[in-house]
Amino acid sequence: MEKTVDGGSVITTYMSTPRKSVSSTTPTQFLEVKGGERYAYRRFGSGRGLPLLLLQHFTGTLDNWDPALTDVLADGRELVLFDNAGVGRSSGSVPTTISAMAMHAAAFLDGLGVGSCDVLGFSLGGMVAQQMVLDRPTIFRRVILVGTAPRGGEDVMHLEKPRLAKHLQDPSNKGYAVLQKIFFTLTPSGQAAGAAFVERLADRKNDLDGVSGPEVANAQMAAFRDWERFTGERFAHLRTIQHPTLVVNGVHDEMIPVVNSYRLSENLPNAVLLTYPDAGHGSFFQYHHSFARHAAAFLAVSSESAIY
Amino acid sequence: MEKTVDGGSVITTYMSTPRKSVSSTTPTQFLEVKGGERYAYRRFGSGRGLPLLLLQHFTGTLDNWDPALTDVLADGRELVLFDNAGVGRSSGSVPTTISAMAMHAAAFLDGLGVGSCDVLGFSLGGMVAQQMVLDRPTIFRRVILVGTAPRGGEDVMHLEKPRLAKHLQDPSNKGYAVLQKIFFTLTPSGQAAGAAFVERLADRKNDLDGVSGPEVANAQMAAFRDWERFTGERFAHLRTIQHPTLVVNGVHDEMIPVVNSYRLSENLPNAVLLTYPDAGHGSFFQYHHSFARHAAAFLAVSSESAIY
Repeated sequence: MEKTVDGGSVITTYMSTPRKSVSSTTPTQFLEVKGGERYAYRRFGSGRGLPLLLLQHFTGTLDNWDPALTDVLADGRELVLFDNAGVGRSSGSVPTTISAMAMHAAAFLDGLGVGSCDVLGFSLGGMVAQQMVLDRPTIFRRVILVGTAPRGGEDVMHLEKPRLAKHLQDPSNKGYAVLQKIFFTLTPSGQAAGAAFVERLADRKNDLDGVSGPEVANAQMAAFRDWERFTGERFAHLRTIQHPTLVVNGVHDEMIPVVNSYRLSENLPNAVLLTYPDAGHGSFFQYHHSFARHAAAFLAVSSESAIY
Repeated sequence: MEKTVDGGSVITTYMSTPRKSVSSTTPTQFLEVKGGERYAYRRFGSGRGLPLLLLQHFTGTLDNWDPALTDVLADGRELVLFDNAGVGRSSGSVPTTISAMAMHAAAFLDGLGVGSCDVLGFSLGGMVAQQMVLDRPTIFRRVILVGTAPRGGEDVMHLEKPRLAKHLQDPSNKGYAVLQKIFFTLTPSGQAAGAAFVERLADRKNDLDGVSGPEVANAQMAAFRDWERFTGERFAHLRTIQHPTLVVNGVHDEMIPVVNSYRLSENLPNAVLLTYPDAGHGSFFQYHHSFARHAAAFLAVSSESAIY
């Protein structure tokens, strides 16, 4: 048995060292689409499932996916993390509409040669996923929408609300620390979960996208404002989407209130809703064990039904 | 190998004969509470789980539990099905308040010597479960509330609504056939699920409670009307309930709309919500495979958290 410096066994060393996260070590790759942008992405994991495209939240980059979640989901399928145009190290300018973001994501998938996959869209990413399902329904088999809203949703990302503005304008919340305040409830358990999440994001030390600047935030905020507008019968477009969908939200989400998930699950003909207590926008990071189990069970169903 | 009349093997016979349902064959028992009523109940199943008390819907009796659901849940724990006072073959008169029903159910559990159990309350039964949790919090460990409403809920069992009255007043809906119309959506898949449910209820041929009469319906309807009333801050009482709770509803429930499940899961501090698409009041009968799996996973959690 090989000895370590302190005389412990190899097994002891292994047990006491945190597992190296595949999410935190997978190198970033770049895909240049002919006549288009050069997109940054990360691709890792394997298994019997279809690839899972992950679409990120407001100002989020490849660095903002919780490794505790992606490590588990990667054990069963290939994950594809993607920076939309102008975000992270992707070229181009950030679109000011969800539609344009959806076109970039579809161009990326086409360029990558992924013709059929599942998708997990969080917040802004959930809107992009919905638009892609409408524009190119055959790309996706199953859809997971976390902390997001349908077009015509209500109270979508109004960061000027005092409850959110307080934390966003607090100079002591440096880097990702602000996420602990705005993605999680202010209860002791919510804040402990938030602190653990922010710590996990720091697992990745190299090959980082870094924090998004105001040009990303401003363009994406314009896209939210556009997404709140609707014409014709509200939510009627959702009733045309037959894809099995899992909708997930924290019941105390201040950024995109849970009522938006209610409207999604009521109007999407084939959607199951799961909500978490004592949780805000980042509910699936807070309860990553539970979410990963539910998501994996949902993705494993081979029927046309969302029921899992 | 033993032969059957037609020359097939025992194994062949076993495979081609529907499994005998434990729910449909367990005899009804009676418990007389000193100075109180004589309650009808059925008790079956075994396993490592705590006993699970099942509290029934408006006019429902011991005969109204879906055997497809109870057979599966009984494989892991003891189930206790119970007729409240004046219902089925229980003695006494049907109370006109949820509180009085909760007292009967607690007296029954006390008489049975069950000091700690889980509970599944459906519709009216979910209200009784909530009241019991408030009155006697130590009786229950985990709570499952299906198609129900908090005190102060909205649009609770208004059978005079045209959508419901149409079916209830249709003389061609004999016996349990009306349940197919009012517990399920009117889509082809909803109605197919409803027909299968009503057929499963007919599995039990003997030792039946039979169909409840108007005296049961009228008293229980008075209890619903009382339950809609509230004093003080709406739903504040829910925030005192710490029990891990799983809230389940169909998104198209016409009898007790899903908004009531939203209010439950938003105000109960420790509740997970699961909603089903294309489903009404009887969502958990429609998706009995899925529900049984979720319920079993929820009941198997030993922590203080509802997260499963």
